[in-house]
Formats: sequence, structure tokens, C-alpha cells
Amino acid sequence: MQHLPPDECRELLHAKAVGRVAFSGPEGPQVLPVNYVVLHGSIYFRTASGGTLANAVRDSRVAFEIDDIDDFLQSGWSVVAVGDAEFVDDPELLAELWGEHGPKPWAIGLRNQFVRITPLRLTGRRVLQT
Amino acid sequence: MQHLPPDECRELLHAKAVGRVAFSGPEGPQVLPVNYVVLHGSIYFRTASGGTLANAVRDSRVAFEIDDIDDFLQSGWSVVAVGDAEFVDDPELLAELWGEHGPKPWAIGLRNQFVRITPLRLTGRRVLQT
Repeated sequence: MQHLPPDECRELLHAKAVGRVAFSGPEGPQVLPVNYVVLHGSIYFRTASGGTLANAVRDSRVAFEIDDIDDFLQSGWSVVAVGDAEFVDDPELLAELWGEHGPKPWAIGLRNQFVRITPLRLTGRRVLQT
Repeated sequence: MQHLPPDECRELLHAKAVGRVAFSGPEGPQVLPVNYVVLHGSIYFRTASGGTLANAVRDSRVAFEIDDIDDFLQSGWSVVAVGDAEFVDDPELLAELWGEHGPKPWAIGLRNQFVRITPLRLTGRRVLQT
């Protein structure tokens, strides 16, 4: 197992479209997949306003994970960002997020709450079979 | 988005080799990928004895997530199991876990602590683009 330098972690954050948000819910740890984009170094995803996820992550410390794993080759990488989740309320940023580069949820349903995770710690690791 | 019935969630748990454990670490929520197997309805993975993951999850509520997501088709499924993580100390079970059906960590390093997650809640969802 090889630890990845921060620069490579930052680069890999752009490599995927879906990550997993881990947070403390009302009934303990939870983890859910979300579509996301990286913009100005932060992670953005959309969720239902007033929903469970929105309420649980607002102004809370969360962990965000992406990975690319090949079961057959038994190799891959993962990157974890730890940071505080905030609702986005800056109009300029909202305009950008509603534009073509913003995150597009795949699931049907109103998901009009943009959430930002600004990474405080970014760690990554790679496993390669020899 | 379609919610999956418990039977299908249980079946899908067998579909993958790597999942992600979300837990409350000393510095807040964390999430890490692990190799796992499902045996007698529980999830088992191996980690380093005395390591950060082992200490953080022992006798704690955790969430375990697997998914299969196609970025291109923008579709896929995810299953989340919530339950308590325990160290395995039953000799018969350890013999089984050390056998050919036990979880095999890909990363190098001593990972001799088997951890069991017995799902208390199992939820799943599927997203299909039309």
C-alpha cells in the first residue's frame, strides 16, 4: 500500500463523478453515495432541501470518499477528504453551480440544496498487486 | 430512484469484494474502503490489530456501503448496512475466516484482526436513467 501525496489526491478528486459522504446521522454513522463536482478546490453536491442528508451534514464535520477499485486485479486507489459541510448561499457561487459545470443529480426529485465540503485533510492510498 | 427490498439488498451484499466502512473516528466521521466477505448474514473484514480502524470501530455502530455505479450510463445501485462492529473471538468462526472463504486483504501488512458487522438495518437504492 502506497500513500498518495496531497497533490495527487487533489488531482484524483476530479477523476470521478460519484463519491460517498460519511456523516453522523441521528442514528449513528451513515454513508451515502452522491454525485459531485470539484470547484475552486471544494467538493459540491446537491441534495433535497430539508431532507435527512441535508439536515445531518449541515455545518458538520463529514468525510468524503472516492475510489477506483478493480476487483479482478485486486488493485486500485482511494482518496478521503475530511472537512466541514456547509450549505451554499453565495449568489455568485450558486449561479455557477446551477450552470453547466455544477453537479447534476441522477435521481429524480427536487435536490435544490447545494452543499460544499472544503477539505481540511486530504489523504489517499493506492494498492497495487505485484 | 427506486428503493430496494431487503431480500435484494442481502443478495447484493454478496456482489462485491470491496466496501466502505463509515465510523466515528477520534477526529469525526471517517470512511475507508475494505475487502470483505459475507458469511452467515454478517459482513467480515480484516484490519491491523491495534490499528486506528480497529480501535475506532470496536463495539461501535458503523455503516457499511457497497455500490456499483456506471458514470457513463449515470445509473447504478448502492446498499448500506448499519450495525455494530465487533472483534471476532470465536475459535470456530476464526478457523472459518482464516480459511479459503475468509476475507483476503489486498494491501501488504499484518491484518490479523477480523471484524464482524451484523446488519441491523439494510437499505438499498437503484438509479436507472430512462
